[in-house]
Order: sequence, then structure tokens, then C-alpha cells
Amino acid sequence: MTDAIAVLSGGMDSTVMLVHTLDKGKTVAALSFDYGSKHNAREIPMAADLCKKLGVAHQVVCLPFMNKLFSSSLLQSGGKIPDGGYEQSTMQSTVVPFRNGILISIAVGYAESTGAKEVLLGSHAGDHFIYPDCRPEFNRAFSKTVDLGTDGKVSLSFPFEHIDKRGIGDLGRGLGVDFAMTWTCYKGGSVHCGVCGACLERKHALRYDQGLDVTRYKQ
Amino acid sequence: MTDAIAVLSGGMDSTVMLVHTLDKGKTVAALSFDYGSKHNAREIPMAADLCKKLGVAHQVVCLPFMNKLFSSSLLQSGGKIPDGGYEQSTMQSTVVPFRNGILISIAVGYAESTGAKEVLLGSHAGDHFIYPDCRPEFNRAFSKTVDLGTDGKVSLSFPFEHIDKRGIGDLGRGLGVDFAMTWTCYKGGSVHCGVCGACLERKHALRYDQGLDVTRYKQ
Repeated sequence: MTDAIAVLSGGMDSTVMLVHTLDKGKTVAALSFDYGSKHNAREIPMAADLCKKLGVAHQVVCLPFMNKLFSSSLLQSGGKIPDGGYEQSTMQSTVVPFRNGILISIAVGYAESTGAKEVLLGSHAGDHFIYPDCRPEFNRAFSKTVDLGTDGKVSLSFPFEHIDKRGIGDLGRGLGVDFAMTWTCYKGGSVHCGVCGACLERKHALRYDQGLDVTRYKQ
Repeated sequence: MTDAIAVLSGGMDSTVMLVHTLDKGKTVAALSFDYGSKHNAREIPMAADLCKKLGVAHQVVCLPFMNKLFSSSLLQSGGKIPDGGYEQSTMQSTVVPFRNGILISIAVGYAESTGAKEVLLGSHAGDHFIYPDCRPEFNRAFSKTVDLGTDGKVSLSFPFEHIDKRGIGDLGRGLGVDFAMTWTCYKGGSVHCGVCGACLERKHALRYDQGLDVTRYKQ
């Protein structure tokens, strides 16, 4: 039994969240989801390696129905991932309908089953308006739903709700996180593409311009 | 594209809900979940047969991780299903943590992906206090969460929230539902056991004492 279950994608936000939570003295088990995204194949081995390094119990939950039944360019079954920043309307295609709702719900059931009292998610203040299931008002409503649906046994925490991705990068650097062990690129190639919305944001967060970003980018 | 997605277990409540919704003139696609319960193997073929008979599109989503990672006597991996009524504390073991939260979330993502504006769930006024994710206050909180998490594209409906299981039975009888094509028993044997909490409730709902229940019971 651990204090908390962390939803761990293998990306930089949830990785820093896990290290930060352990640093505060909590015990944590990690849950990753293979929902058929183009970058799951890159992210999940990184999440597994990280947990091994940290001595954290790690489960991978496979959700093959999402790739089969859902519509999103983020999925292997979907169209091409657009290049360019999140402000462009094309990025709308990367929304996976109610994805965080699904991942949180499963993590809550797992937490209650194992006696963990908290589920941690790495949504942050810099998450973009196109993703409705990353917004603070969604987090509040879902927190209430979880409280009611578990008779108060499990609560949701969004420790980065009030800091942005660069804040997370700085926090992680201070905690000694090796960002080469995290994956961000939506395209899921052999190295980060460097030009999709997710890569552009990672570069900013990890201070690429200042030479602090250890990521290998194609462009 | 259909108007609504119905979460269809193959039990009597969701079956009546589906027939009732079609009777009102809506188009509906059905979604069943194989989450590893002892009675899924009985329920799901009934759900499939019903959809075939009604000409309703039907998808079965498999969630094998629940049987592996979750704790409940309802699951194949769990202990023995207790006999007797729901008022007994032993029935607490049949709770599958946050199950409805998980099923609803997946149905919402599927609805948004297919353009359906409504997700229907057969929770009813007679659902028991031991199941927190069947209560009206849970339904309200989750409805708000779904509204926020889909930017208003999908809404939740609980058409039986204000009637009990006997009311559902009577409604279904009036609509010509063949209850022999529905499954309730938690034990998942070859016929309904007749003595578990779920069977006792089914007998009451279908007016067994009045000779109106077409179900074959072992006891």
C-alpha cells in the first residue's frame, strides 16, 4: 500500500511530479496508460525505466479500445500530427476526447483497490485551452465526483495546477531529474522532432535557448 | 452517428433503458464493458443478442486490467459472492471501486468521438447505498465534470434516476421487453442462482410472487 498513485505518462510533467512527491516523503506507485497514441511507444519505456531507477512500483494499463473507437490525430489510428504552436486551430485535432477523465477514473479505482488515498495528475497552469480536461474547473468538478464516488476514500491532487511548464522544468532541474529520460514529442519518432507544438513547448520549458535542454531534437 | 450512447450491461435496467430510449424515437448505439466480473460472460452475449434483435450498433470494450488490479468479490479474481439481501454488510465486498466512473468516462470519450450528444446510464432510485457511484449526488457531480471536460459536447442522462427496479420492470413489460434476454445474477452460473442479493432484487422487480417473472432460477 502506498500513500498515492501517480498517473505517469513518461513525459516531463508527470516525471517531475513523481520525483517531487517522493522528495516530500510520500510513498507512490505509478500507473501508465497505453491508449494507442503515436508517442506511447516512446513514453512508456521511459516511464518504466524511471520507476526502476527510483524503486517505484509501476503498472502499465493497456486501453486498445481508444485507438479503435476514438477520434484524434494523437492516436495511431488518427491523421497527421500538425506542426507549429498550440495557438493554431490545427492543434484541435490532437484532443483525445475525455482522455484525462478516463485515465483519472481508472487511477481512482486502482487507488481505492490498493488503499492509496490520493491520485496525482500532472496537469499544469500552462496546459492549453484546447484541452478541456486539463482546466482547473474540470479538476474541481472531478475532485468532487471522486469524493462522492469513493465515499471520501480517494482524493485528486493536481500539484502543478498553479505553475507552468517552465516552472516544472526548473523545479525538476533543482530535484536532479534527468530530462533525457522523459519524452514529449507527439510524433513518437526515434528522436524528438523539435517542431510539433509539444516539442516547441518542451524547448521553451527546458530553456533550450539558454543551452540547458539536454534533449536530442531532429530540428 | 447516433443521438446517444447507452451503457448496456445486458442486465434488466440498461436493457429497458435502451428499449425505452428507442421507443422515444432517438437513435442509440450501445457500449458494453467486459471488466472481468463473474457475470460478464452471461451478460455480454445477452447484450449482443438484444442489439442484434433491435438493429442497434454494439461495441464491447474489454478492460482486463480491472480483474488484475482491482479488489472486489464481483470480479473473477475476487472472493465468493455473498448470499442474501443488499442490506447485509457482506454485500460491501461486491463494490467495484469507481466502476461507474470508469464506464461513464469511456462512454463519454466514445460519444464525443462519434458525435453523439448524450450518454445514458441505467442507475436507478433503488440502487443501494453501498454503491456510491450510483447515487444522485454522484450523477450530478459527474454530469458537471462531463459538461466541462467536453466543452458542453456531451451530457449524461440517468433516465431511471427517479424510479426503482420494480418500476423499471413494469415499464419494460409495457414495452414488450423479453426479460429472458437479460441477466442479473452476480454469480454468473448457467442459470440465475435465485439467492444472491441481485437475484432477490430481480425477483421482486419482475413480480416473481405474482407469477410474472419469466426467469429460470436454480432456487
